[in-house]
Amino acid sequence: MGRIAFLLLAVAAVSIIVVSADRGAGHTDEQAAPIFGVKIPSGYRDWRLISVAHEEGNLNDLRAILGNDVAIKAVRERKLPFPDGTIIARLAWSYVPLEESKKAFGRLQSFVAGPRKNGVQFMVKDSRKYASTGGWGFAQFDHGKPADEKVQNTCFPCHQAAKARDFVFNHYAP
Amino acid sequence: MGRIAFLLLAVAAVSIIVVSADRGAGHTDEQAAPIFGVKIPSGYRDWRLISVAHEEGNLNDLRAILGNDVAIKAVRERKLPFPDGTIIARLAWSYVPLEESKKAFGRLQSFVAGPRKNGVQFMVKDSRKYASTGGWGFAQFDHGKPADEKVQNTCFPCHQAAKARDFVFNHYAP
Repeated sequence: MGRIAFLLLAVAAVSIIVVSADRGAGHTDEQAAPIFGVKIPSGYRDWRLISVAHEEGNLNDLRAILGNDVAIKAVRERKLPFPDGTIIARLAWSYVPLEESKKAFGRLQSFVAGPRKNGVQFMVKDSRKYASTGGWGFAQFDHGKPADEKVQNTCFPCHQAAKARDFVFNHYAP
Repeated sequence: MGRIAFLLLAVAAVSIIVVSADRGAGHTDEQAAPIFGVKIPSGYRDWRLISVAHEEGNLNDLRAILGNDVAIKAVRERKLPFPDGTIIARLAWSYVPLEESKKAFGRLQSFVAGPRKNGVQFMVKDSRKYASTGGWGFAQFDHGKPADEKVQNTCFPCHQAAKARDFVFNHYAP
C-alpha cells in the first residue's frame, strides 16, 4: 500500500440524494461559497482522476476525486503538505445497477454512475488565507449554488480525521 | 436518465485480483496484444473520466472508465457509433475500506481504490480494421504484458450485450 496519503471525504450529513444541476464539463459559478469564499472552478469536470470511491449505507453513491494540475503533481510525487494552488473536487453519482451486465455475467453485479448527486465539493489549498483550517478552504455547491454556512462548517471538523495526510482522505489510485 | 449510451465492461472471467504493474501516468508498452494488435496507449492514466463503477460479487473492485479526447467528445455529444480513433480504457482497483472514515462517520461505510488490480483493458475504434467485431479492437494487459489470445477472445462476445450502445456498457457520468 505504498501510495500517497491523500484526502477528501463527503460531508455525509448533508449529501442529500438529489440530481444536481452541475453537469457537463464544469462551469464557473459567480457565487462564492460562504466562510471560505470558494467558487466552482471552471472546467473541473475535465480534471484528471485521483481516485474513485463508493459510499455504502445511506449515502449509497459512487464518487470520483479529481484534481487540478497542482494536485495531480503533488499526489504523484507523494508530497505533503499539498502546495498552495491545489484544488481537489469530489463528485458523486447515484449508485445504479447496469442492466446489460446481467446478460454478460448472468447475474446483477455491476453498478455504475447514475444521475449526478447533489453537492459537488471542493478543497482549495491556500496556507495563509485558510491558516485556521489546516490551510484548506472548503465548499459545497448544491445545484450550482453554494450551500449555506451551516453546511460549509461541517467540512473541516470531518476532515480532521485525516490530519496526518494533510486533511485529505483519499489516496492516489495508481 | 437522458445521458449518453456508452460501453465497456470487464471481461469478468479473467479479471483475477492481482496487483498490476501498470501504474503511474501510464506508459507505452512495446508488445501488441494478440488478435487485435492493440498496444497500451501512452499516458492513458491522464485521460479524462467517463464514468466510475463498482463490481460486486467475486470481482469486488472499483473501476474508472477513461477516454481519449475523441472518446470524451463523442460521449458528451451523445454520438453513436463512436468515431474512429476512439479509445476507452478500463482500470480497476481493489475495493478497500477507508479506515479514517470510521472516525468521521462513526461506522465503516467508505470504500476506496486500493492497489491496482491486474488487467487494464482497452477498446479501440477502427471501423475498417475491426469490422468483424463491431468496429472495435479489444485488449487486456496483465502486469504490462498482453494477455493471451484466449483472454482477448472473451471481450467481444461479452460486449454484445451492449450492442445497442455500440458495444460500450458505460454511460457518461455527467
